[in-house]
Amino acid sequence: MEAIGRRRWAIAEGYLPAGSHGPAPQMTSHETVCILNTSDQHAHIRITIFYADREPVGPYLVTVPARRTRHVRFNDLKDPAPIPTDTDYASVIESNVRIVVQHTRLDSRQAENALFSTMAFPA
Amino acid sequence: MEAIGRRRWAIAEGYLPAGSHGPAPQMTSHETVCILNTSDQHAHIRITIFYADREPVGPYLVTVPARRTRHVRFNDLKDPAPIPTDTDYASVIESNVRIVVQHTRLDSRQAENALFSTMAFPA
Amino acid sequence: MEAIGRRRWAIAEGYLPAGSHGPAPQMTSHETVCILNTSDQHAHIRITIFYADREPVGPYLVTVPARRTRHVRFNDLKDPAPIPTDTDYASVIESNVRIVVQHTRLDSRQAENALFSTMAFPA
Amino acid sequence: MEAIGRRRWAIAEGYLPAGSHGPAPQMTSHETVCILNTSDQHAHIRITIFYADREPVGPYLVTVPARRTRHVRFNDLKDPAPIPTDTDYASVIESNVRIVVQHTRLDSRQAENALFSTMAFPA
Repeated sequence: MEAIGRRRWAIAEGYLPAGSHGPAPQMTSHETVCILNTSDQHAHIRITIFYADREPVGPYLVTVPARRTRHVRFNDLKDPAPIPTDTDYASVIESNVRIVVQHTRLDSRQAENALFSTMAFPA
Repeated sequence: MEAIGRRRWAIAEGYLPAGSHGPAPQMTSHETVCILNTSDQHAHIRITIFYADREPVGPYLVTVPARRTRHVRFNDLKDPAPIPTDTDYASVIESNVRIVVQHTRLDSRQAENALFSTMAFPA
Repeated sequence: MEAIGRRRWAIAEGYLPAGSHGPAPQMTSHETVCILNTSDQHAHIRITIFYADREPVGPYLVTVPARRTRHVRFNDLKDPAPIPTDTDYASVIESNVRIVVQHTRLDSRQAENALFSTMAFPA
Repeated sequence: MEAIGRRRWAIAEGYLPAGSHGPAPQMTSHETVCILNTSDQHAHIRITIFYADREPVGPYLVTVPARRTRHVRFNDLKDPAPIPTDTDYASVIESNVRIVVQHTRLDSRQAENALFSTMAFPA
C-alpha cells in the first residue's frame, strides 16, 4: 500500500491528568499519540514537546515499523525527560515517511472515565 | 447530489474495549466507522486493519448503497478475521466512489459510558 | 470580517440516543450542528439527512444571520419529518455563503453524560 | 523549527456549562482554546466571540511567546466582556504568525465529567 498521510503533524492540546480510578494500565489516566505507518519503510519519528513557560524538550525518538501502527502514551516518554502531570503542553510529530497521527486522552480522575480523540493537524 | 468526500481515508486510533455495562447492543463497548455515500452509485469499500506486531489483515468488504449511510462496528468485522479486544489497531478505508468517513468509540467498561468521535483523515 | 469556511459540509456520524437523565433541555440526549456565519450576509442553509435503508430526507431549512452562530439540535428538525431516535443517520449541510460547521453529541442515557465534538468534513 | 499552522482559525461550537462537580480549577466546567506557536516570534492573537442574537464581541488579546503553547480558558476571557455561561457561542482566532488551534471542553455538571476535543477549522 502507498504511504498515507503527512510527514509533520501538530497537536495543540496536551495534559496528563494527575490521578486515576480503575485497573492499570487500561484505566490509568493518559494521553496517546496514535501513529499509522502504511508505507513499506520504517518510520523514524521525532516528537518535540512544547510548554507554556520553558523551551521545547526533545526529540523523543519513536520507530514505527513498515505497515504497522503504534499507540504511544505520552506518559511513557522518558528520554530526554518525562512530561509532568497536571501541566499544559503541546507536541509536534515529525517523520521521514508519511504517517497518520491521532490524539486521544483517557481521564479517570473521577470514578467514571472520560475520553476524547481527534486527528492531529497535518502541517 | 454530487459525490462528496474522498476515496481513501485513514484512522490511526483503534481499540475495542474488553467489557461493557448496560443493555446490548446499544451500550456494548464498540468502535464504529461511519460511512456516508452521497453518490448515485454503490460504494464498494475495502477496510484494511493494521496492528502493532503483525502484518495488516484484510480486505474486509463493505457495501454502502447509493445515497445511504452505513455505520459499521469494527466489532462486527469477521471475515477474514475478527479484531481482538484490548489490542491497538488502525485502519484504512478505500472506496471506488467518494465517501465521507468518521470514527466513533463508545467505552462502557466503567458503569458510565464515555464517547469520542472524529473525522477520519482524508488521504 | 471576511467569510470563513466552505459552502458544503458533511457529517457521517449521526445518532439520537433514546433516553436521558437530568434536567431538560440542557441534559437531554441530543446531537447538534453548530454553524458559524462570519459573513455580512444571511446564510440560507439546507440540511439533508441520509439513512441506512431509505432515500435521503430534506431539505431542512435553517437561516443563520450575518455575523451570528446558531447551534441547531437535530432533535428539533421537524419539517419535512423528524429524525427518529436510536437510528443511524448522516447529514450534508449546504449554504449560499461560506460557513463553519461542527458536530456535537451529548448522550445522557446513563446517569453520567458523555460528550463528543468534531469539525464536520469540508466538501 | 519552522512555523506550523495557519493564521486564522474558527470554532463553531462554544458553550460554557453552568455548574461543576469536583475540585477547582481542574474539574471546573470549562472550554479551552489550546494554541501552539512553534515559530521564533511572539504570536499576537485576537479572539472574536460570535453569538446567536447579538453582534460579535472582541477582540480579546492573547500573546503566545515564541516556541510556547498556551491553553486559554474561554471562562477566563474578561476584556472586553466575559462570556456568559449556558449560552451558545462560536469563535474566530487570528494571529500574526502561523499557529495551531485545538478546542476542548470539560463538562462536570454531573458527578462524573465528560470531555471532548477537536482541531479547530483552519481558514
